Amino acid sequence: MKIKRSPRLVDMTQYLLSHPHKLVSLTFFVSRYESAKSSISEDLTILKEQFELSGFGRIETVAGAAGGVIYIPTMSKEDAIVEVENLIYQLEAADDRILPGGYFYLTDLLSDPDQLRKIGKIIASYYAESKATAIMTIATKGVPIAQMVALYLNIPFVIVRRDSKVTEGSTVSINYATKGTTRVEKMELTKSSLPQGSHVLVIDDFLNGGGTITGMNSMLKEFNSTCAGIAVLCESDTPDREIDFEYESLIKVQKDPSFAKGFELTLGTMFKD
Amino acid sequence: MKIKRSPRLVDMTQYLLSHPHKLVSLTFFVSRYESAKSSISEDLTILKEQFELSGFGRIETVAGAAGGVIYIPTMSKEDAIVEVENLIYQLEAADDRILPGGYFYLTDLLSDPDQLRKIGKIIASYYAESKATAIMTIATKGVPIAQMVALYLNIPFVIVRRDSKVTEGSTVSINYATKGTTRVEKMELTKSSLPQGSHVLVIDDFLNGGGTITGMNSMLKEFNSTCAGIAVLCESDTPDREIDFEYESLIKVQKDPSFAKGFELTLGTMFKD
Repeated sequence: MKIKRSPRLVDMTQYLLSHPHKLVSLTFFVSRYESAKSSISEDLTILKEQFELSGFGRIETVAGAAGGVIYIPTMSKEDAIVEVENLIYQLEAADDRILPGGYFYLTDLLSDPDQLRKIGKIIASYYAESKATAIMTIATKGVPIAQMVALYLNIPFVIVRRDSKVTEGSTVSINYATKGTTRVEKMELTKSSLPQGSHVLVIDDFLNGGGTITGMNSMLKEFNSTCAGIAVLCESDTPDREIDFEYESLIKVQKDPSFAKGFELTLGTMFKD
Repeated sequence: MKIKRSPRLVDMTQYLLSHPHKLVSLTFFVSRYESAKSSISEDLTILKEQFELSGFGRIETVAGAAGGVIYIPTMSKEDAIVEVENLIYQLEAADDRILPGGYFYLTDLLSDPDQLRKIGKIIASYYAESKATAIMTIATKGVPIAQMVALYLNIPFVIVRRDSKVTEGSTVSINYATKGTTRVEKMELTKSSLPQGSHVLVIDDFLNGGGTITGMNSMLKEFNSTCAGIAVLCESDTPDREIDFEYESLIKVQKDPSFAKGFELTLGTMFKD
């Protein structure tokens, strides 16, 4: 059905927002709205401008016969810092973040859709140009973050597991050492879940010694895949961490009984100049 | 800054889509766009109509001083059936769905953002009026579905775990029997993750004997919470299932070696008249 500019803008906005990182041809919109190419181009000019002004991200134009537009969700560094500072404020408001054994409680945050949307968009924005073809995380607490980033980058996510379940078909397993201890653990990934030659963004909720992420890096090699980046929501403040990978964190957690609540939070490496 | 109708429509569309099930006051839009209330009302009329035409869902108006609009993501039964039939088509295209032990392989589906968006919206639409305040699922494979439904209903989701992890603080644990066997297993939920008196939508990927869901129902009682509904992506075709709960499924899986691929898929209970 032929529709007018106003409803067209509403529909196009929704369409692009729900198809991030996907090339949409002008022809598609022309036939969807039974409108002239020139009208669609004008619509896209309006959308482009407002998407940037509103901070949704940018709409890129790809020229040529196979061309069209791609919506790339992004958040400016300034906006991301404001969001993460809000997050820090909320995390600090609770009294019982530090659990026995020194673990940092994040479960409430990782179950809140609003917070997850923000975290996912910040990470997806940072890796918008990474050309990652998949996301890898480890069960259970990395999953909500990985899934949100996957939604914004519009690529599949795979879940490495520490427990062996019989319901997923043949798996590849590797051993990895928990840093700071001599404990050797096992992680597994279903063989068919990640294509060989993938370019993978690795996501986790918390970086402590780095053993788990080192393990996921080994797993990537088993799948002849490369690492597109490593992002964690929080990292502990561990100056002498012996790791052989680059990563970005949103929040740095410094645990010290001398602080009022036993910890202090600051902006992570992603926001360093 | 004062902005014109076209860019306003783009921004309002995005705003409502990313704040489902949330009351947004007209005053909020009036000050956001520095526009007259009458203009905002006209905008909302356009949005309302197009949201329904495009199948995003409906925009409800709440009258009165504390009034405003609420965007409810919905999908018509007809559209949902088309989507689930597409899903069935894709599931049937693969040769190796049936794993040793009779398990049904779904991992590829549960890692695909596009499929998850559709599944999440179908379930959220069905339970749009359930007044659920939280979603409960069990690790690991229920999580992606639960998270998508949580995003559309804009409520938190909690993850019950079969393994005991030390990093989440004190937990409530219950024992449950795996149906068809005499095995007794244990599931746990972090105490602070679900407020007492919640109204909970229970989500899982696969319903076999019903032991896991019976377990989650017991868990709800431990939290003095009520069940707002139970939804599963797939259920096995088990005519003599002895369960004491109502549920809805999207897909019914009939396993039989006499079928070409060892199974046949049909529409689940959600689409019965």
